[in-house]
Amino acid sequence: MAYKYIIVTKPTEYVAHVELNRPDKLNAFIPQLWTELGQAFVQLSKDAEVRAIVLSGAGERAFTAGLDVVAAGEWNGEMANLPDTARRAAHMRRHILEMQASLTAIEQCEKPVICVMHGVSLGLAVDLACCADIRICSSDTRFAVKEVDIGLAADLGSLARLPKLVANHSWVYEVSLTAREFNAAEAQAVGFVSQVQPNKAAALACGLDMAAVIASKSPVAVQGTKELLHHGRDHTIAESLKYTAVWNAAAVQCDDVQSALMSGLNKTKPRFAKL
Amino acid sequence: MAYKYIIVTKPTEYVAHVELNRPDKLNAFIPQLWTELGQAFVQLSKDAEVRAIVLSGAGERAFTAGLDVVAAGEWNGEMANLPDTARRAAHMRRHILEMQASLTAIEQCEKPVICVMHGVSLGLAVDLACCADIRICSSDTRFAVKEVDIGLAADLGSLARLPKLVANHSWVYEVSLTAREFNAAEAQAVGFVSQVQPNKAAALACGLDMAAVIASKSPVAVQGTKELLHHGRDHTIAESLKYTAVWNAAAVQCDDVQSALMSGLNKTKPRFAKL
Amino acid sequence: MAYKYIIVTKPTEYVAHVELNRPDKLNAFIPQLWTELGQAFVQLSKDAEVRAIVLSGAGERAFTAGLDVVAAGEWNGEMANLPDTARRAAHMRRHILEMQASLTAIEQCEKPVICVMHGVSLGLAVDLACCADIRICSSDTRFAVKEVDIGLAADLGSLARLPKLVANHSWVYEVSLTAREFNAAEAQAVGFVSQVQPNKAAALACGLDMAAVIASKSPVAVQGTKELLHHGRDHTIAESLKYTAVWNAAAVQCDDVQSALMSGLNKTKPRFAKL
Amino acid sequence: MAYKYIIVTKPTEYVAHVELNRPDKLNAFIPQLWTELGQAFVQLSKDAEVRAIVLSGAGERAFTAGLDVVAAGEWNGEMANLPDTARRAAHMRRHILEMQASLTAIEQCEKPVICVMHGVSLGLAVDLACCADIRICSSDTRFAVKEVDIGLAADLGSLARLPKLVANHSWVYEVSLTAREFNAAEAQAVGFVSQVQPNKAAALACGLDMAAVIASKSPVAVQGTKELLHHGRDHTIAESLKYTAVWNAAAVQCDDVQSALMSGLNKTKPRFAKL
Amino acid sequence: MAYKYIIVTKPTEYVAHVELNRPDKLNAFIPQLWTELGQAFVQLSKDAEVRAIVLSGAGERAFTAGLDVVAAGEWNGEMANLPDTARRAAHMRRHILEMQASLTAIEQCEKPVICVMHGVSLGLAVDLACCADIRICSSDTRFAVKEVDIGLAADLGSLARLPKLVANHSWVYEVSLTAREFNAAEAQAVGFVSQVQPNKAAALACGLDMAAVIASKSPVAVQGTKELLHHGRDHTIAESLKYTAVWNAAAVQCDDVQSALMSGLNKTKPRFAKL
Amino acid sequence: MAYKYIIVTKPTEYVAHVELNRPDKLNAFIPQLWTELGQAFVQLSKDAEVRAIVLSGAGERAFTAGLDVVAAGEWNGEMANLPDTARRAAHMRRHILEMQASLTAIEQCEKPVICVMHGVSLGLAVDLACCADIRICSSDTRFAVKEVDIGLAADLGSLARLPKLVANHSWVYEVSLTAREFNAAEAQAVGFVSQVQPNKAAALACGLDMAAVIASKSPVAVQGTKELLHHGRDHTIAESLKYTAVWNAAAVQCDDVQSALMSGLNKTKPRFAKL
Repeated sequence: MAYKYIIVTKPTEYVAHVELNRPDKLNAFIPQLWTELGQAFVQLSKDAEVRAIVLSGAGERAFTAGLDVVAAGEWNGEMANLPDTARRAAHMRRHILEMQASLTAIEQCEKPVICVMHGVSLGLAVDLACCADIRICSSDTRFAVKEVDIGLAADLGSLARLPKLVANHSWVYEVSLTAREFNAAEAQAVGFVSQVQPNKAAALACGLDMAAVIASKSPVAVQGTKELLHHGRDHTIAESLKYTAVWNAAAVQCDDVQSALMSGLNKTKPRFAKL
Repeated sequence: MAYKYIIVTKPTEYVAHVELNRPDKLNAFIPQLWTELGQAFVQLSKDAEVRAIVLSGAGERAFTAGLDVVAAGEWNGEMANLPDTARRAAHMRRHILEMQASLTAIEQCEKPVICVMHGVSLGLAVDLACCADIRICSSDTRFAVKEVDIGLAADLGSLARLPKLVANHSWVYEVSLTAREFNAAEAQAVGFVSQVQPNKAAALACGLDMAAVIASKSPVAVQGTKELLHHGRDHTIAESLKYTAVWNAAAVQCDDVQSALMSGLNKTKPRFAKL
Repeated sequence: MAYKYIIVTKPTEYVAHVELNRPDKLNAFIPQLWTELGQAFVQLSKDAEVRAIVLSGAGERAFTAGLDVVAAGEWNGEMANLPDTARRAAHMRRHILEMQASLTAIEQCEKPVICVMHGVSLGLAVDLACCADIRICSSDTRFAVKEVDIGLAADLGSLARLPKLVANHSWVYEVSLTAREFNAAEAQAVGFVSQVQPNKAAALACGLDMAAVIASKSPVAVQGTKELLHHGRDHTIAESLKYTAVWNAAAVQCDDVQSALMSGLNKTKPRFAKL
Repeated sequence: MAYKYIIVTKPTEYVAHVELNRPDKLNAFIPQLWTELGQAFVQLSKDAEVRAIVLSGAGERAFTAGLDVVAAGEWNGEMANLPDTARRAAHMRRHILEMQASLTAIEQCEKPVICVMHGVSLGLAVDLACCADIRICSSDTRFAVKEVDIGLAADLGSLARLPKLVANHSWVYEVSLTAREFNAAEAQAVGFVSQVQPNKAAALACGLDMAAVIASKSPVAVQGTKELLHHGRDHTIAESLKYTAVWNAAAVQCDDVQSALMSGLNKTKPRFAKL
Repeated sequence: MAYKYIIVTKPTEYVAHVELNRPDKLNAFIPQLWTELGQAFVQLSKDAEVRAIVLSGAGERAFTAGLDVVAAGEWNGEMANLPDTARRAAHMRRHILEMQASLTAIEQCEKPVICVMHGVSLGLAVDLACCADIRICSSDTRFAVKEVDIGLAADLGSLARLPKLVANHSWVYEVSLTAREFNAAEAQAVGFVSQVQPNKAAALACGLDMAAVIASKSPVAVQGTKELLHHGRDHTIAESLKYTAVWNAAAVQCDDVQSALMSGLNKTKPRFAKL
Repeated sequence: MAYKYIIVTKPTEYVAHVELNRPDKLNAFIPQLWTELGQAFVQLSKDAEVRAIVLSGAGERAFTAGLDVVAAGEWNGEMANLPDTARRAAHMRRHILEMQASLTAIEQCEKPVICVMHGVSLGLAVDLACCADIRICSSDTRFAVKEVDIGLAADLGSLARLPKLVANHSWVYEVSLTAREFNAAEAQAVGFVSQVQPNKAAALACGLDMAAVIASKSPVAVQGTKELLHHGRDHTIAESLKYTAVWNAAAVQCDDVQSALMSGLNKTKPRFAKL
């Protein structure tokens, strides 16, 4: 596929790299960027040549500055023409659901996604990062759950996902209600990111290396692990144990177990069939 | 309203301050204090002049020492007169539900609540703090989930809420099962509080400042953020995203977005209509 | 009961100590070890002489190295004789459910369980530790969610329980998807363990002391606390508050409250009836 | 308590009868009627002299014709003064929640409630009846889920409760989407009511007799049965079994079991202590 | 859109009619039919000119005979080439999810869907009908949950939806486990259909008339009613009441309420703006 | 296994028949009967020679009259020796959970269970029948949810399961709160049973024939169908669809599909491998 506002490359075997690509606009989101991003992850989810994905922002200044305010304004203008509140609300609800769906495509992508953040990472940047499986940042990253500062409760996932991803609820409420910025060290202390690197290049290298490690493992094992961790996050333990047993009843019947064990004994690199 | 065992003041615009006020008894809870506390938060939830609330304990020695043992003893005496175990159990169940409801009024208050703790903060202090959105303490605070030491499993919310608020379940079980004290540093390390200040005065100032910041934002945005974070805590991600879309379909149709954007451009302080 | 691969002792009053006992094989799991472990915890759950349990591994080198690969291979051989995939899957599903049930016996044991880890603690070691209520380790412990390295998604509970026990989801996904080792300091930083001790002996002493403290408390209070924390972990707050009220309506009607209060006043050690 | 728009009587021992009392207006709901109805059921829930409740409508023509359109219009006028959609929506949401709470007081009343319907039973009549435990009607009853005919989705509980109370979902959707009337025979065939009587007097007699039967049983057994059926309706079977065991662990420790057994043997009428 | 295996017409204002159109093959499902059906309902869900939809099967003999066995065989052939069980299972899982998604498009269509069945209505016919909101059939309809007769547990929704739609679980298990046929009278008695008509023409007329009635109502009210009934089916009552209040807070702010009331008074037919 | 109070036979290939066998005591339950019944269903669940099970009561007079009152009295005597309410409640809770577990073994048995009732079928008879998949009765059956008449809320499953199995909640509450008897016709009308036969012999023949039909189908298909219907009953539709896809991804990879299709074409009886 050809994209205008994102770049998709394959830097190493079985690894894809998705970059937000409006660097002159701090990678702010316009409708076409939403659409392309969702499409890319739906496609990568099915692409048997891809086993791990890194998501980052092009340019030195920003992962993303969030929603493009000009584009948002245009959209609100259209809505004003609708005859009453109920119809405007229906329109708006569908619009929010569509934008959420673009981000949820990242969460539901069958392959692990590593989000690498740097510089300006405000508002939508946090919604987006919450959809990834692993979060890494450079030490200069400036984060904020920025939405209350423009009169909005964040509606693209931060408020739904943060209380599950991060332990310290007092902190989650504090940053969400005050919209204050927090830096990389604070993000690591509370568990929002699991790695901090000195700069963007190092953070990206760390992400790509981690992706390469994951991509070298059995895709049956890796994709099953993502699916079961996701399931565990949203279900009771009893539910998840049962689902796990049904899932693995088929998944363990693969050649990868034998390949992995043999490679371990022989100190060779295992090769796994496509999935 | 006139209260005897709590003090409610409005230190700055749109900010309310609720103080537990039995300092000579270390703010220990008697029935009237329960009742007044619940009533105050029901009233503040509806008060359009209030946009953020700070909760603290009067006096230098304690946020609260927990349940007043004398009062608890009297109540148990009454119950002994009931004819059989089933009837005593029904009576006790209703009593626990009533006390829980007083605390839940804090959690369900539409406005954000910042709990500022200092000194003795035992037993019920933890149940109470878990109902707030943000927890701050002074460095001298002495915490304990104290109930097992008096032969009880905590039943006013600590055991229901702590496993959700704090990441480290091993620690949650440890302090709940041993009833050992923990201090401010430990509380911050595990994520029970998000700010530690050198003393009560500084902690309270920090809480009031944070409340003022929150109160200066759009109340539509702030109250929506509290509601959606609460929803996210108790629902799957998919459920919360859907609820969020329905919520914001109406909430974004307000003048606050425009006011906030204009104020941002003009470097002025925005004014928002009552909610 | 007589066990071959585990040792069950009672080092102090009301405390039981369960040791995995295949030290020459790094306490790797074979079918009989599974069976014995499950049986032991079912029995201890009912034993009124036991009020707290410590679980550790015999020998200096390992808590456990995980599944015994030889035993696993034999079992897979048997399964190969089944006529088709559906029947092999049914067989495998029942097998996983049985192994899960052995571990879940630890989680559902009515008495608190403290897991003390040291040395090699890979794969199944993490599944096992997640079933305990409190986790302690020595500073030399080497942890890994190792399963993807042998071509499997972990199916004995790590993926279902870790996202609930530990705050930092980015870290949970990172270690589960890469299978990389992590050490005691990292385990403590993310909240997987709540105590790190310099060596196995110190870790075990810490665990036994903590067990003795818990065992000295009212068993009504302690077992209720475990039950209600477990409930809180898997339910909404509203659900748990209601369940708590019904639970305590009977539980508070015990002599332990009076005994505990009197002992507190008299500075004596309370004695509590069996439960 | 003194009520203006409802009548509360005690026709036989332990039985209360609540009547909607605006017969000249077909018992249409105005704000004060809402308020009084909610208050009455909160009070009856606690009244130890009451063990079963019948709810019906005064006059020959109607159980209730639903919302009073004049009152609704006035309320909407007030709302029009609010500055924007978000604030009107917040206002409306609180208003709907308050009206729902009045009806939910019937559902949550600890004593069984039998709803006896006759004549005009439209719109709100169905929302109201869904909150009762048992539904009886006269053969002349005219039912409709009427709300779509006035441009609304029903928001006082019919759409939340009907799919749980009645088996035939195709029918539920049909009557809710078309707003067509259905009669007593159809209501019985689909399971909305469990008894049809020839006229209002007979239906009321049937309801009062049934209430007297229920009121003659052990209140511990009866109130436990209501609570556990409600729990079963909204939970998985596994959840409900566990809750039931905790509930009955205290409830069976009452004198009523012995009284009931003895009365059964001796053919006498048992007497049960207040609850 | 141009479809090959379905026909989409608009017989009356705001009503769409979707027909399965492989009458010579008893409307058996081949991949393209799946795809077209899903696409059609996604498109109709957004089409503001459509307010109610009827779904039926072309030809006199069948609503649908279910899955086309020839097509299913071809698909299984492809799968046999995959290297191991885990990979075949992953392939199959994705395939089932895709087919389910086509049917779920009917359930999630914002407009009410009335399914009109006649003649052969086996296997997939039941899965399909369960996705509609209202089910009507002719008296000659032959139903069966047929899948066990071809060695399969039904996986396209019958087993997930039937226990919710139909009251009589004993009957649901009986027909699902024996695969025996049941006729229109039995379908009506247990509540699977809400109307039986003498023949296909009458059943279709009944469905189209009902659709016309629904399409004449306020689309805000109708679409809200479908959404809230769906929500009620899958949530607790408390959850649904809260969701309902948020939904209607915006939805009641429409011109339709006024239009509907005025038309009622003036005995005119109301006109509602597009949604 | 040798049983004293139940009889287990295999009347036809792959069919087991379990009879409650204390006919002189109307098959009333004593502790050993509980234990044997639970053991039998655990064993039958694993027995590859069994594919369907019929459960009935020996003798002409009763399916079962419920709990043996003499045995229950003895048990209560034991409990009276415990020191306080909390300890008696813990004892009672464990006892209820054990009895529930015996019945739940029927529900969780992997093979379908058909319950055939006749004559006296009171109290526990209903709890028991609710655990079966299919319910059949003779026309002389006398049913009651009898527990409130002995001062108890039913705690062995009726109140948890009835609201899910039967559509008419008004009827469920009516019979549970009044303890009145209902007959076979009423049981069929509300959907508690799906077949009524003229007498016990005919009901049993009907049950055994139905079991034989089920036992002649693919066990992969039949056991999957039971599992998925159970899942559907306790989960949202979205959850069940996903679980179904994972389940069938392995289950469809069996020889039974081919065998079933060939037998259908050749009009022969298919043979299926053990499961």
